[in-house]
Amino acid sequence: MENTKIPYKIYLEESEMPKSWYNLRADMKNKPAPLLNPATHQPMTAQELSAVFCEELVKQELDNDTAYFEIPQEIRDFYKMYRPSPLVRAYCLEEKLDTPAKIYYKFEGNNTSGSHKLNSAIAQAYYAKKQGLKGVTTETGAGQWGTALSMACSYLDLDCKVYMVKVSYEQKPFRREVMRTYGASVTPSPSMETEVGKKILAAHPGTTGSLGCAISEAVEKAVSSEGYRYVLGSVLNQVLLHQSVIGLETKTALDKYGIKPDIIIGCAGGGSNLGGLIAPFMGEKIKNGADYRIIAVEPASCPSLTRGTYAYDFCDTGMVCPLAKMYTLGSSFIPSPNHAGGLRYHGMSSVLSQLYDDGLMEARSYSQTQVFEAAEYFARVEGILPAPESSHAIRGAIDEALKCKETGEEKTIVFGLTGTGYFDMVAYESFHDGKMTDYIPTDDDIKASIANLPKI
Amino acid sequence: MENTKIPYKIYLEESEMPKSWYNLRADMKNKPAPLLNPATHQPMTAQELSAVFCEELVKQELDNDTAYFEIPQEIRDFYKMYRPSPLVRAYCLEEKLDTPAKIYYKFEGNNTSGSHKLNSAIAQAYYAKKQGLKGVTTETGAGQWGTALSMACSYLDLDCKVYMVKVSYEQKPFRREVMRTYGASVTPSPSMETEVGKKILAAHPGTTGSLGCAISEAVEKAVSSEGYRYVLGSVLNQVLLHQSVIGLETKTALDKYGIKPDIIIGCAGGGSNLGGLIAPFMGEKIKNGADYRIIAVEPASCPSLTRGTYAYDFCDTGMVCPLAKMYTLGSSFIPSPNHAGGLRYHGMSSVLSQLYDDGLMEARSYSQTQVFEAAEYFARVEGILPAPESSHAIRGAIDEALKCKETGEEKTIVFGLTGTGYFDMVAYESFHDGKMTDYIPTDDDIKASIANLPKI
Repeated sequence: MENTKIPYKIYLEESEMPKSWYNLRADMKNKPAPLLNPATHQPMTAQELSAVFCEELVKQELDNDTAYFEIPQEIRDFYKMYRPSPLVRAYCLEEKLDTPAKIYYKFEGNNTSGSHKLNSAIAQAYYAKKQGLKGVTTETGAGQWGTALSMACSYLDLDCKVYMVKVSYEQKPFRREVMRTYGASVTPSPSMETEVGKKILAAHPGTTGSLGCAISEAVEKAVSSEGYRYVLGSVLNQVLLHQSVIGLETKTALDKYGIKPDIIIGCAGGGSNLGGLIAPFMGEKIKNGADYRIIAVEPASCPSLTRGTYAYDFCDTGMVCPLAKMYTLGSSFIPSPNHAGGLRYHGMSSVLSQLYDDGLMEARSYSQTQVFEAAEYFARVEGILPAPESSHAIRGAIDEALKCKETGEEKTIVFGLTGTGYFDMVAYESFHDGKMTDYIPTDDDIKASIANLPKI
Repeated sequence: MENTKIPYKIYLEESEMPKSWYNLRADMKNKPAPLLNPATHQPMTAQELSAVFCEELVKQELDNDTAYFEIPQEIRDFYKMYRPSPLVRAYCLEEKLDTPAKIYYKFEGNNTSGSHKLNSAIAQAYYAKKQGLKGVTTETGAGQWGTALSMACSYLDLDCKVYMVKVSYEQKPFRREVMRTYGASVTPSPSMETEVGKKILAAHPGTTGSLGCAISEAVEKAVSSEGYRYVLGSVLNQVLLHQSVIGLETKTALDKYGIKPDIIIGCAGGGSNLGGLIAPFMGEKIKNGADYRIIAVEPASCPSLTRGTYAYDFCDTGMVCPLAKMYTLGSSFIPSPNHAGGLRYHGMSSVLSQLYDDGLMEARSYSQTQVFEAAEYFARVEGILPAPESSHAIRGAIDEALKCKETGEEKTIVFGLTGTGYFDMVAYESFHDGKMTDYIPTDDDIKASIANLPKI
């Protein structure tokens, strides 16, 4: 193994941790399109948004000008419990691949929520608390976001109501127990607790639920309960803002050792991890023309960037939320069952959609089997069992490193390893048993759901 | 929250990581009693042990004189993938308890095996590889050790055969899948793969297995297969030696900030984590009379130190292994079902037994419910979901901190947080649902099993 000055893991000192989040929108030449009111097709006002979201978060959501938002001391204290996350030099992976590429990954999985989601959960819970609210509501599919929010609410003594897609509630009882450990109430959705839930159950008595339905229940619960607001774990501008802590730490760590990345890779579902990781690098690229290649990796079963359309669409399948302009497969698109629950979203953050449309980043997709091959390979070589979502980025990084092997180029590749797969062993089991299937939507599938886009 | 120079997490630099393991036995005035041949009652020779264990490990097992064993470079490289582990200042816990005590914990759970077990797994796998062996066999109950060994063997391209207690194999399919991800073969025990397995299955067709039986199968498989040896995750002197990396890192981190602990606390099953954590501190206590209080915490359902007898006993229930002198409840003692599988061992490391008998450390026990109360409290306050085993130490640390609150003493408490509870959610669920029971053996239970001790 190579002997070098760069350690296996670069940890920042507490004093080097970011004191502000970076708002990439402030430096974007083409700003992301605003959210629209689904009834009037006019931009959502702060007042309209405040019925659903906390006030401070509404400000962050709508602010395309302020480049830096100070991170409140209480949140910085919480971050110190599990951050800085390590920037890992993948020496073992490089050796195994026999590549001249230098590979680094920012590992966000070393906290009990198991992913980067906690970075925004604590921020959103903090502002809810500061506003004097009693609690927050949310939905969760795979469960990472629900777990993160439960942890943040428990820390701040805030009530947390999670609507968990029924099929996940039943298939992932352990995720549910982690949330209960943190005092959250977890309700399988659809439920009899909300009007929309009752309506759906009446129409489809045997339904196992969907993320779209769980969102609708969580929103209804928030707006109909005194002292509650709704919070969301991805897609929104505010979430990307909070997640910029990932990219800022990464950049500080790289700068400390004089390392300039050539390629930055992240998985993309709603876009929060990728948007956070690339924020400061993209900012340099826009402002100074820095020549970073930035690559979003998405599942072939849900290819919003690579095969979607850039248009206004509903954020939820229930069509109750504001309209967002994004690369989308259509809000009626049903991704095939796959094990990267966190990437099964029909659209993409408006920020990332705009950057992609401006040609500032690339995108590619992989099938589930390709992703799990990379996941297992990585687990064996680097000792970390990755989440299925994160493994999309691993696959992308491995492929770039193998290209370097062909060309002999010593490129520096940085990718985001968003989380661990401890609660995804059913997926690994299906992979080991050769039972994993790769469903890729046909052009007709996508055409059909895109035909349902709202007419703006 | 207090503003202080001491960070939330103390990480050592790579250059500060231990280059040698520390062999506490070299500094013990009363050496631990030797293993005895069960047939002759004579001390086991290196030659006898070499039929079962790797040669280099046999040397380490028998050496009571060499204070430091150099850690081979390959193992140090592997350690760098997941070590140094953080020494965490529990600021949030201190604040919540409102105690003047300063609490630190050494967190060993941030690796995919989820515990400290990997520290010895990689060492044992390395020496097996160096000896030119094809593979190793072992048993696993809760699955932490089996997972750690699978990871180490995968890294070194060594075959790994794990006999997993059948009831765990069936109840913990996810642990099994992690081992499969690392390429291990996992066999539910008892199995038809071994003579002893066949015999047990013939006598008890419906048995769900036991650790004792799984050990017997793993040992038989090792001695009957060309190029294989048996490895064990706790109890043995060699394992405590490897685990000294925990204590050495802890001491370096504390010394760096001029911190002297008053109380050091660890959970104790076979004793490997506690023995590793306390090694350098106990060495000072023996050599210089340093006044550390050292506390072993065990489950009330399996109280080997607090209610056992110091005598020679079999290490396994099948009575095929050498005899060890230890605090024991008798090898026929069956601990009640509880969720801290890693602490359900009838005996205790000979090193720790001797230290305890010499009055150099204390011991206490807690019921399962007391432990889970502490686990949930800790998870909510410090954000880490602890393993049931580790939570024994948490409970001990909280109780000591609460004593400081009463007396106003600013004691410094260090405890070992050995692992995470992601695969123990069934236990948490039973706790949340109020279904957890506390079985504590009666004096007659213990008297009965101790009556079966071998006559030496």
